[in-house]
Amino acid sequence: MLRVGIINVTGYAGAELARLLYTHPSVRLVSVSGRSGAGKPLGEVFPHLACYDLTIDPEASDVDFIFSALPHVASAEALAPLVRGGLPAIDISADFRLKDANEYAAWYGAEHPEPGLLAQAAYGLAELNRESIRASRLIANPGCYPVSALLALAPAVKAGVIAPDIIVDSKSGISGAGRGLGLPYHFAEADESVSAYGLNGHRHLPEITQELAGIWHGESIAGVEPRVTFTPHLIPMTRGILSTCYAPLREQAGLSKDRVRDIYREFYAGEPFVRVVDTPPATKQVRGSNMCLVYPTIDPRTGRFIAVSVIDNLVKGAAGQAVQNMNLMMGFPETAGLLGPAMYP
Amino acid sequence: MLRVGIINVTGYAGAELARLLYTHPSVRLVSVSGRSGAGKPLGEVFPHLACYDLTIDPEASDVDFIFSALPHVASAEALAPLVRGGLPAIDISADFRLKDANEYAAWYGAEHPEPGLLAQAAYGLAELNRESIRASRLIANPGCYPVSALLALAPAVKAGVIAPDIIVDSKSGISGAGRGLGLPYHFAEADESVSAYGLNGHRHLPEITQELAGIWHGESIAGVEPRVTFTPHLIPMTRGILSTCYAPLREQAGLSKDRVRDIYREFYAGEPFVRVVDTPPATKQVRGSNMCLVYPTIDPRTGRFIAVSVIDNLVKGAAGQAVQNMNLMMGFPETAGLLGPAMYP
Amino acid sequence: MLRVGIINVTGYAGAELARLLYTHPSVRLVSVSGRSGAGKPLGEVFPHLACYDLTIDPEASDVDFIFSALPHVASAEALAPLVRGGLPAIDISADFRLKDANEYAAWYGAEHPEPGLLAQAAYGLAELNRESIRASRLIANPGCYPVSALLALAPAVKAGVIAPDIIVDSKSGISGAGRGLGLPYHFAEADESVSAYGLNGHRHLPEITQELAGIWHGESIAGVEPRVTFTPHLIPMTRGILSTCYAPLREQAGLSKDRVRDIYREFYAGEPFVRVVDTPPATKQVRGSNMCLVYPTIDPRTGRFIAVSVIDNLVKGAAGQAVQNMNLMMGFPETAGLLGPAMYP
Amino acid sequence: MLRVGIINVTGYAGAELARLLYTHPSVRLVSVSGRSGAGKPLGEVFPHLACYDLTIDPEASDVDFIFSALPHVASAEALAPLVRGGLPAIDISADFRLKDANEYAAWYGAEHPEPGLLAQAAYGLAELNRESIRASRLIANPGCYPVSALLALAPAVKAGVIAPDIIVDSKSGISGAGRGLGLPYHFAEADESVSAYGLNGHRHLPEITQELAGIWHGESIAGVEPRVTFTPHLIPMTRGILSTCYAPLREQAGLSKDRVRDIYREFYAGEPFVRVVDTPPATKQVRGSNMCLVYPTIDPRTGRFIAVSVIDNLVKGAAGQAVQNMNLMMGFPETAGLLGPAMYP
Repeated sequence: MLRVGIINVTGYAGAELARLLYTHPSVRLVSVSGRSGAGKPLGEVFPHLACYDLTIDPEASDVDFIFSALPHVASAEALAPLVRGGLPAIDISADFRLKDANEYAAWYGAEHPEPGLLAQAAYGLAELNRESIRASRLIANPGCYPVSALLALAPAVKAGVIAPDIIVDSKSGISGAGRGLGLPYHFAEADESVSAYGLNGHRHLPEITQELAGIWHGESIAGVEPRVTFTPHLIPMTRGILSTCYAPLREQAGLSKDRVRDIYREFYAGEPFVRVVDTPPATKQVRGSNMCLVYPTIDPRTGRFIAVSVIDNLVKGAAGQAVQNMNLMMGFPETAGLLGPAMYP
Repeated sequence: MLRVGIINVTGYAGAELARLLYTHPSVRLVSVSGRSGAGKPLGEVFPHLACYDLTIDPEASDVDFIFSALPHVASAEALAPLVRGGLPAIDISADFRLKDANEYAAWYGAEHPEPGLLAQAAYGLAELNRESIRASRLIANPGCYPVSALLALAPAVKAGVIAPDIIVDSKSGISGAGRGLGLPYHFAEADESVSAYGLNGHRHLPEITQELAGIWHGESIAGVEPRVTFTPHLIPMTRGILSTCYAPLREQAGLSKDRVRDIYREFYAGEPFVRVVDTPPATKQVRGSNMCLVYPTIDPRTGRFIAVSVIDNLVKGAAGQAVQNMNLMMGFPETAGLLGPAMYP
Repeated sequence: MLRVGIINVTGYAGAELARLLYTHPSVRLVSVSGRSGAGKPLGEVFPHLACYDLTIDPEASDVDFIFSALPHVASAEALAPLVRGGLPAIDISADFRLKDANEYAAWYGAEHPEPGLLAQAAYGLAELNRESIRASRLIANPGCYPVSALLALAPAVKAGVIAPDIIVDSKSGISGAGRGLGLPYHFAEADESVSAYGLNGHRHLPEITQELAGIWHGESIAGVEPRVTFTPHLIPMTRGILSTCYAPLREQAGLSKDRVRDIYREFYAGEPFVRVVDTPPATKQVRGSNMCLVYPTIDPRTGRFIAVSVIDNLVKGAAGQAVQNMNLMMGFPETAGLLGPAMYP
Repeated sequence: MLRVGIINVTGYAGAELARLLYTHPSVRLVSVSGRSGAGKPLGEVFPHLACYDLTIDPEASDVDFIFSALPHVASAEALAPLVRGGLPAIDISADFRLKDANEYAAWYGAEHPEPGLLAQAAYGLAELNRESIRASRLIANPGCYPVSALLALAPAVKAGVIAPDIIVDSKSGISGAGRGLGLPYHFAEADESVSAYGLNGHRHLPEITQELAGIWHGESIAGVEPRVTFTPHLIPMTRGILSTCYAPLREQAGLSKDRVRDIYREFYAGEPFVRVVDTPPATKQVRGSNMCLVYPTIDPRTGRFIAVSVIDNLVKGAAGQAVQNMNLMMGFPETAGLLGPAMYP
């Protein structure tokens, strides 16, 4: 059994990771740390995790594999010595996602604490980057919005179907904002209300742009800089992201809805966690699971391509993707610990 | 006191109209009809309306003014004889919104029952069409989504700020689907879930397009046919619509966010029910009220214009707009009966 | 026009009061104060109150009537000089509800700051105490749970129907916990969850007991000390309280459900804000309104009396009751400003 | 691998059973039937179950073990021939719960279709009836409310702590009403609302009474007929039941809260799915899992015993209990397929 640890288990991503690892056949969670709850039994902070006989320590220790669910900056700082010491690691924070340290500084308002590690970190979206993940010892687990946007758009980009002029309109459950208190997440304020935010630029935008550009460049359309507008919205529910993505069709003639769906089916053939669907999906259909459902279509009136994707932001958008990455890194079956269907209704 | 009637009070738009009329200083609701609840006291079907001493009749009668909250086709059929008899009327259904009977037939799957009345019906969005409403005896009350989209976009269109290539991504509470039962509106299915629908074409699309085209034509840009993509989404809340609207800026140079906001402020100066706001609004801020909040901005990275609007779909998107229209038609103060602030939280 | 002020408008009770006063025909809100938002326009803190042209001041001033929505202790301290100066006042906090300062100290963990004012304060539940309210210059506005429990139980107590052995099982929306942040009110924690709290004794318990005892004593059953168990529960909704009240029937023979309902109808005859209903009510039926619906019944299998009541905790349970009390004190029609039906759905 | 079938997979209990069985190590779901969706792939009716390559058949066939999630009457009729043919079966409907066919007829409004099978059916609440379940071939899976009430009360009854004068005030998520449409379960009606129902007698009442009486009789207090009042409430959430149970303490002297908790801890020692907790639990802590959390306490002011329990109505209250029962019947580890922690938040 692989002995794994979670740094900062006390946020939602960390707790979700502990939930998923409990039934993983090849690993054992042996160490959890947290800043807020140090010294307390894990089951006191999270009653649903009372199945674990673990105490929250100030630091994770004596493990073969480490996940960090710390906030950015703190995460890179905590992981750096472990990674240098040879421990395989997955960083759920944003610290190793942007390949350019200047871009990082511009968006995150701080110098990157460990720019020297950037080159060895693989971007951990398995469906687009499986081989790099397998070969890497440090994974930048992707942001929840980027997962939903990239899985919705990648096949269309690869196939040259769309022009690089993209709108991602995302709707997220409120757990995406984390466990830290704030008036916008206070029940009486958030309940029965929808709002847009981040209209001046959300930190997941450069991540989406970087990865989309990578696909375009990989397709030898050198120099393409996709123009992406990204608008996240807060939805009165706990879990789930639905992203509605729009782009102009590059060659409209003859491209039917069925053909677009076939392109997607081919792209995702054999993928255990992405399913191309025939009708627009609902976030509830993936709640609690690592699945992403994608519905691509075209609007013949305007010549636009539209793709709708749904994920659980805490699973495929965070902890589930992290387990999938660990499976790839350690040579476990990719679906180990991730087979449970969504909790519906 | 104006004696008013509501045909089909038993849906949500009808019930909301009765709620609003109760405190209107110049009218008295004297007759309500309904297909489902005929013969029952209004307060039995809707306990919150027990303040009325009214029985649901098979037909509305003996009134000076009539609202119809019937479904389309049935609504035009019920109103036609009354309108011909001289009764001022507001149709909350879609029957008189599209000026072209062929377009109506194509979208609503039925021949228009009263094409002869189309010419005299005014499109009842007060902020864009006030004088026609004042002069008319038959009002086509606008659809909920079109209200949110048109108020978000009209100033930008008028001012020549955007190109006619528009995406309207709308998020609606579930009361918009009405009181009729259906699996997508069953609590356990709809709760904690977001989904897109109408991707093959929603009936509010031609209404949005028609009215936007009217503005462009009015601006002497003859022949402009706006290309509109409209994607509605179902949100797990009862009331509210937030529309996020995107379009390319026509002349990007020099157009700051502040300048765009000023254009909107000028356009809506003096309007009692539209407020241009400095931060992205939330639907809860207008819940139960006739207000529309609009937040226009630009995305300088991509040269896109973005406007976010919020309304209560049952008030400004239906019954409140209808009261506002009645006020205009009858010479009452435009805000009569509509002054109550939103119910927050 | 009566010039009124609200001390601490920045909580939910204060904001709701401002909402209700906006359409009151005989008063004008001219001064609002708040600790958190001082200096800001009211419409910036609460966008739905932008209809007011008011700035949040550090202190309320130049008014004919004052409401305090401060927390306990602070409220009595702020009101005392105003009350002594002759200003009629309504305290929405708990400071003047318990007639016994020792009881206050035991439950609120602080010496009562103004025990000398306790004797002149009237308990402001209009249906049980109308004449005292009319005659008083200082009103202790009742707690939200006590309103729901007392209106559910008073007629049965008065009529000698039940023994003084009472269980009040209450279900409250989360706005009852106020606008202050806390993990139990964080959306992702509170959503889709029910929990009980206050099982070691909630502060509304002595208030319920005191007022029930008063009714029993008034009925010349001297020395009766009702034994009350009170269990509040947190419900994943914003507004509303439903209380289910249980007590043994004193004389079971011959007391039918219909007879119990008649006793309640007689008790509440002519009351504008209490309605006795024939089927169990739902909190949504009173949402946003000052109504209380009461459903009394008996369980013939066990000889128990059961009454279910619903109110909106922020209206009849706080701000609406306060307006009703002001109306009584100032000789306005009791329903002034409170006529709007509930917002349903 | 045990080959199992589900009759009527198309309701929520059936679908939840399919979800849980997917990761069960010793069984394979090979046949599902349904009245509504016959002929369709299971994944079309329930996208979250697309992991199964199964079609919904008119009848289940070729199985070693059968679950029925049909409504009452239909369920007994469908199971009878299979049970007589020797197939081990679990009935999730109410058909075999009440031991007295007359009682059944009185509460369910129909003659019992198979009274001859009643004697051989075991009541399937594992914590109270484990050996009977192991020895039986036909299990009456308990109702969701009874599970929550019985687990909350059984230790206190067994230990002679309470008098047989019991109130069960239950709060249930709306999935408990099933997948069938109805106005009370229409999102816009149920959302943001609480209501009581079943005040004239709910069908789970005789089940609770029968099982409590059984415990009292087992304790040689012959002839005790517990007087139970049961009030269910509808809560605006999808899953979960919280039951607050009240009873007079029989011998108050010296019985501390700690002592009561110890009694409960001893009673449930070693139980994998019941945990006695030190603070009042929330339904979210068991969401999606087979756990029941119980919080027993006393109200020293009134001499009352109070116990609060939480379960997921679709898991421990239906499908999870059914899997647990199958495990007992077939000699699998009792926790097989049921180890996943709750989905929190």
